[in-house]
Amino acid sequence: MPLDPGRTVSELRELHELTGDEHGAQRVAFTDTWARAREWMREKLEALPVEVEDDAAGNRWATLEGASDRAVLIGGHIDSVPNGGWLDGALDLIAGLEVLRRVAEDGRPAHTLRLVDWADEEGARFGRSLFGSSAASGTLDIEEVRGLSDAAGVALPDALAEHGLELDRLAEARGRLAGAAAYLELHIEQGPVLERLELPLGVVLGTFGLERTRVSFTGQSAHAGSTPMDVRRDALAAAARLTLDLREIAKQGGGVGTVGTIAVQPGIVTAVPGACEIVLDQRHLEADGLAVMVAEAREAAQRIAGEEGVALDWQPIWAIEPIHFHPGLIELAEDAVREIAGEAPTLPSGPLHDAAEAARVGVPTVMLFVQSLRGLSHAKEEDTLQEHLELAVEALDRLTTKTLAWVGGSP
Amino acid sequence: MPLDPGRTVSELRELHELTGDEHGAQRVAFTDTWARAREWMREKLEALPVEVEDDAAGNRWATLEGASDRAVLIGGHIDSVPNGGWLDGALDLIAGLEVLRRVAEDGRPAHTLRLVDWADEEGARFGRSLFGSSAASGTLDIEEVRGLSDAAGVALPDALAEHGLELDRLAEARGRLAGAAAYLELHIEQGPVLERLELPLGVVLGTFGLERTRVSFTGQSAHAGSTPMDVRRDALAAAARLTLDLREIAKQGGGVGTVGTIAVQPGIVTAVPGACEIVLDQRHLEADGLAVMVAEAREAAQRIAGEEGVALDWQPIWAIEPIHFHPGLIELAEDAVREIAGEAPTLPSGPLHDAAEAARVGVPTVMLFVQSLRGLSHAKEEDTLQEHLELAVEALDRLTTKTLAWVGGSP
Repeated sequence: MPLDPGRTVSELRELHELTGDEHGAQRVAFTDTWARAREWMREKLEALPVEVEDDAAGNRWATLEGASDRAVLIGGHIDSVPNGGWLDGALDLIAGLEVLRRVAEDGRPAHTLRLVDWADEEGARFGRSLFGSSAASGTLDIEEVRGLSDAAGVALPDALAEHGLELDRLAEARGRLAGAAAYLELHIEQGPVLERLELPLGVVLGTFGLERTRVSFTGQSAHAGSTPMDVRRDALAAAARLTLDLREIAKQGGGVGTVGTIAVQPGIVTAVPGACEIVLDQRHLEADGLAVMVAEAREAAQRIAGEEGVALDWQPIWAIEPIHFHPGLIELAEDAVREIAGEAPTLPSGPLHDAAEAARVGVPTVMLFVQSLRGLSHAKEEDTLQEHLELAVEALDRLTTKTLAWVGGSP
Repeated sequence: MPLDPGRTVSELRELHELTGDEHGAQRVAFTDTWARAREWMREKLEALPVEVEDDAAGNRWATLEGASDRAVLIGGHIDSVPNGGWLDGALDLIAGLEVLRRVAEDGRPAHTLRLVDWADEEGARFGRSLFGSSAASGTLDIEEVRGLSDAAGVALPDALAEHGLELDRLAEARGRLAGAAAYLELHIEQGPVLERLELPLGVVLGTFGLERTRVSFTGQSAHAGSTPMDVRRDALAAAARLTLDLREIAKQGGGVGTVGTIAVQPGIVTAVPGACEIVLDQRHLEADGLAVMVAEAREAAQRIAGEEGVALDWQPIWAIEPIHFHPGLIELAEDAVREIAGEAPTLPSGPLHDAAEAARVGVPTVMLFVQSLRGLSHAKEEDTLQEHLELAVEALDRLTTKTLAWVGGSP
């Protein structure tokens, strides 16, 4: 049976019928709907000559034994955000299923091939993204998640127990990931780059590093009518200047910079704002580039505070290191995409993915992106042209073949 | 008995003892505390050879008959905002009381002198500022206020009835104001101008005109990580630019311009804002100057919307015409202030005052400002140096003498 990319699209629709509603996909991790999706997937896997088992973090591994036990992994996640899209995570996994079928059909591969369904990539219910993959990589700190609960007050350990998992045994999930020879993942882009290039597929260079900073400016609240312009200490004006500077810093620096929230005090139309708080979100593929952007933003904030006569409070609140994918696998992926789609653009990933956890522990890793329509994701409007989905399955298949050969050739 | 400015300060303190608490002044119009303040004032007036009566809007008039029935009015308001300052409105009235005493002591004046305590200048409870003075000027539309109620659900007509007033008879308050020969008012500045000039007193040229506009920019919400800078349609960036342009327009135009509220959608740190709404508050002493500022702001908004690829919605929500005080009385006031304090700076008033209602119906009007410490008002921290309060009483007294003479000389 040759590769059938059309089947992948049919199976994605079948899964969406089973686990979505009029508001979108509802496969939130550790819920009944998620369990139903996993059961559906298990039935598909049982038709193949693979061994299926869950690890201590709820990640589900389907293993096609090869001549060697060196393993190439294909990862995805069947969980979604609430009211999510039909492709985010599910495409990765179901395209991987099709590749697994094709490889199995061709007889015992030279190396082992494993498809992994990571548990709770989204972190939509308990707020911890990359739950299963970080348990497998060893970067999950059990004590940091022990106290988490969902909006209804259900504690994470109880939700895990409902699915046969014990919080204190999560560390046992380590091993399969760290020992892998390569890790591959296909994902929708969730951004506008490929659509603008009018290309179906791209090769991902890595995931952005991120620095998030809470910036508060404090000036003096004053009456909008009785306070002349030249004596104002307007905290909003300072924040407006920094918002615009942040954008220039990102453009110059080759990263991205966003102000997504802003709040002023006292927040009435007749008062010059005495206080304004914004959160800066800066991202870059290179640690150095990110550090430069953050330093420039901080300098700008200090300069603006001085010029506006307002006080500055600069509070770093979160940071993630950039993750670079493997140069050799990036080359293979470019070859695969070029063969399938003609051109192979490279791009960074803004969002994090499970692939970052694999790369973080030294597994040679690469990702493929397929075009997202209008860049929309985490919404029922999330979509990709069927012909692009089929090209994506073909590219993943070809990349898998090349990677199995590369593993053979690599030390 | 000569003028005793120190008594004014003592009486202000006495009133505050009686009607304030640890949170500030509590003389909200049409409440029991307000009635208690008015009763206290009535006792003071009863010691003078004046006739005291209330009009149909609750304004209280104290009349010192003169040789002619042409009347000079001194206005103030004993009502305050909740948790207000001890001087706003009360200074005007109690300084007027002291001037009335002094004039009465000197024997029958050439013209009639009336002290008026306007009812509900602040509009703090029912939201309609200048209630009593606009009823007297005829600019109050009874139908517009008939449906008003306070935060506790008490209807305005019921609150009026508790103080012996009938909503449908408000129009009967007209007459005394329209026929007046001059109107004088002393008020704390409620702004920082005199404090910066290090001068106790100023002469007010008029009250600002105002245009308030709701501006909405609509771009495209997008992921902060996956959306390159050059494809963003960031509604907050557009609003930030307009906020800064508004400030330059005000500086160039000789008025003031404020953005006091800002809201973004979706308002999360990981999303480029797809929508942003701000409210522009622009003020100028000249109608032409205000019109130019508003036109420039609109042009800027349109230009920015075009450059940022966002849609613009421009909604005027409120406007007030500028009010100019009387050139002849401004000259008299400058003379009076110069004689008392050496220098007589002129300045516009950002906040509205009852004086605007007098000027609006053609009564020759002028106001004096006395310095406010740190520009604070409508708060218990509102304050003015005692020596400045005393100079203010002297200046009002001198202005009253000059105005009585001026009325004699004017046609």
